[in-house]
Amino acid sequence: MSKKKPLILVTNDDGITAPGIRHLISVVKKIGDVIVVAPDRPQSGMGHAITVNDNLYCDEVHLDDEVKEYSCSGTPADCVKIATQEIMKRKPDICVSGINHGSNSSINVIYSGTMSAAVEAGTSNIPAIGFSLLDYSMEADFSHTSEHIAYMVNKVLEDGLPDATVLNVNFPKKSENDIKGIRLCRQAKANWVENFDKRQTPTGRDYYWLTGEFVDHDGGKDTDEWALAQNYISVVPVQFDLTAYHALKEFKNWNFED
Amino acid sequence: MSKKKPLILVTNDDGITAPGIRHLISVVKKIGDVIVVAPDRPQSGMGHAITVNDNLYCDEVHLDDEVKEYSCSGTPADCVKIATQEIMKRKPDICVSGINHGSNSSINVIYSGTMSAAVEAGTSNIPAIGFSLLDYSMEADFSHTSEHIAYMVNKVLEDGLPDATVLNVNFPKKSENDIKGIRLCRQAKANWVENFDKRQTPTGRDYYWLTGEFVDHDGGKDTDEWALAQNYISVVPVQFDLTAYHALKEFKNWNFED
Repeated sequence: MSKKKPLILVTNDDGITAPGIRHLISVVKKIGDVIVVAPDRPQSGMGHAITVNDNLYCDEVHLDDEVKEYSCSGTPADCVKIATQEIMKRKPDICVSGINHGSNSSINVIYSGTMSAAVEAGTSNIPAIGFSLLDYSMEADFSHTSEHIAYMVNKVLEDGLPDATVLNVNFPKKSENDIKGIRLCRQAKANWVENFDKRQTPTGRDYYWLTGEFVDHDGGKDTDEWALAQNYISVVPVQFDLTAYHALKEFKNWNFED
Repeated sequence: MSKKKPLILVTNDDGITAPGIRHLISVVKKIGDVIVVAPDRPQSGMGHAITVNDNLYCDEVHLDDEVKEYSCSGTPADCVKIATQEIMKRKPDICVSGINHGSNSSINVIYSGTMSAAVEAGTSNIPAIGFSLLDYSMEADFSHTSEHIAYMVNKVLEDGLPDATVLNVNFPKKSENDIKGIRLCRQAKANWVENFDKRQTPTGRDYYWLTGEFVDHDGGKDTDEWALAQNYISVVPVQFDLTAYHALKEFKNWNFED
């Protein structure tokens, strides 16, 4: 009995030529038929931005003989929308985003274009995984991620994902030590404390570069930060129902009229 | 006994000159000392984008004699970061964002620059509320929102908000019917189904405009969509820990190594 090959949508936020997405494509093209729709330039830190005040280009490009690819002028979330509504002939069986050059663990998930692409797919009931590597370098070594990506993509293709949930997967940076395994985690409580670098233009106008320091307030052994520090791959199931259900009862003093 | 006046940070995503933010400023300047740091141009649909590959300008502008205001070249999230780290002398007692020209109910929360500004403040433990009106028009009538905004801002200043939670407040469009009151809600399950408008440039290159249809799959009477349809103001407590805790148990088949 022959099984139909799965249809896999690949996108990212570092742009279609970034080494991270090229590595991801090389892994998943062994698993199914791959369509790539990815930004035509870096879109890091774009969060869940979409393009509402400008038009979008989405042009076919030829970078890999085995894969159909489109370079899109929009954000990662735009790429998923245009891929699923305009480019692909049927709904993909899975959407994979990344591999991001840099961490999307903990609070970084809310700024991440990589994860927003996965979330966008999730809102249309497409199982989705965002992959990130804790190495910002464009020369980063992704070789240790391949077998784990193949395992996780196959697992999701077989079992699906819980309703309204996508996966945020972060890989430790390549080192001499072997990856210890995969850990299911919660998002560590953390935030960024900014430290703007204030400068002046040659004509004397102040401007700023956003820089900051990541502060982990958590330290729990069930968090993604802990797992990554121990050389585990972290997997956090991420939801897009943002309702703070546990907080609903704390508004008793409010005057809710009927 | 004199109480110190609260310090209120105001931002939005429609830009510093939009009628929605001007209305919000007119309401909250009666409650405390107001500092405005808002985008210098419309930033709708920017989600939680931040500016990492470009520098930021943040220039003082004079639009209201009673209020100190800065026009920023960045996203709504950038505005909150630069306001709290560079502009303001102390941590604000509350951050209010909006009033957005258009709904941020249901799944729209993930695309919303208005709400991302509130979430950004929340990540630094600043109580925050995002306000939106179900009217996209730049001529929208905000008059029916004033007393309710004042009530909610005062309530949050008095009681604070549950840990790691911000509020997503949506107002029905102004109509002949009175607002029925405020409802505490959960985010309705819904998504957008895109319908790209495909065109050609004069030289024959395809391009697209993102358009789509909002589809509510929910209908629950405890949702924001239901409340708004009944002419209530919807209040959804929003969290930025995106971990799908309820889903953690569903990964038993995975090979988690130790």
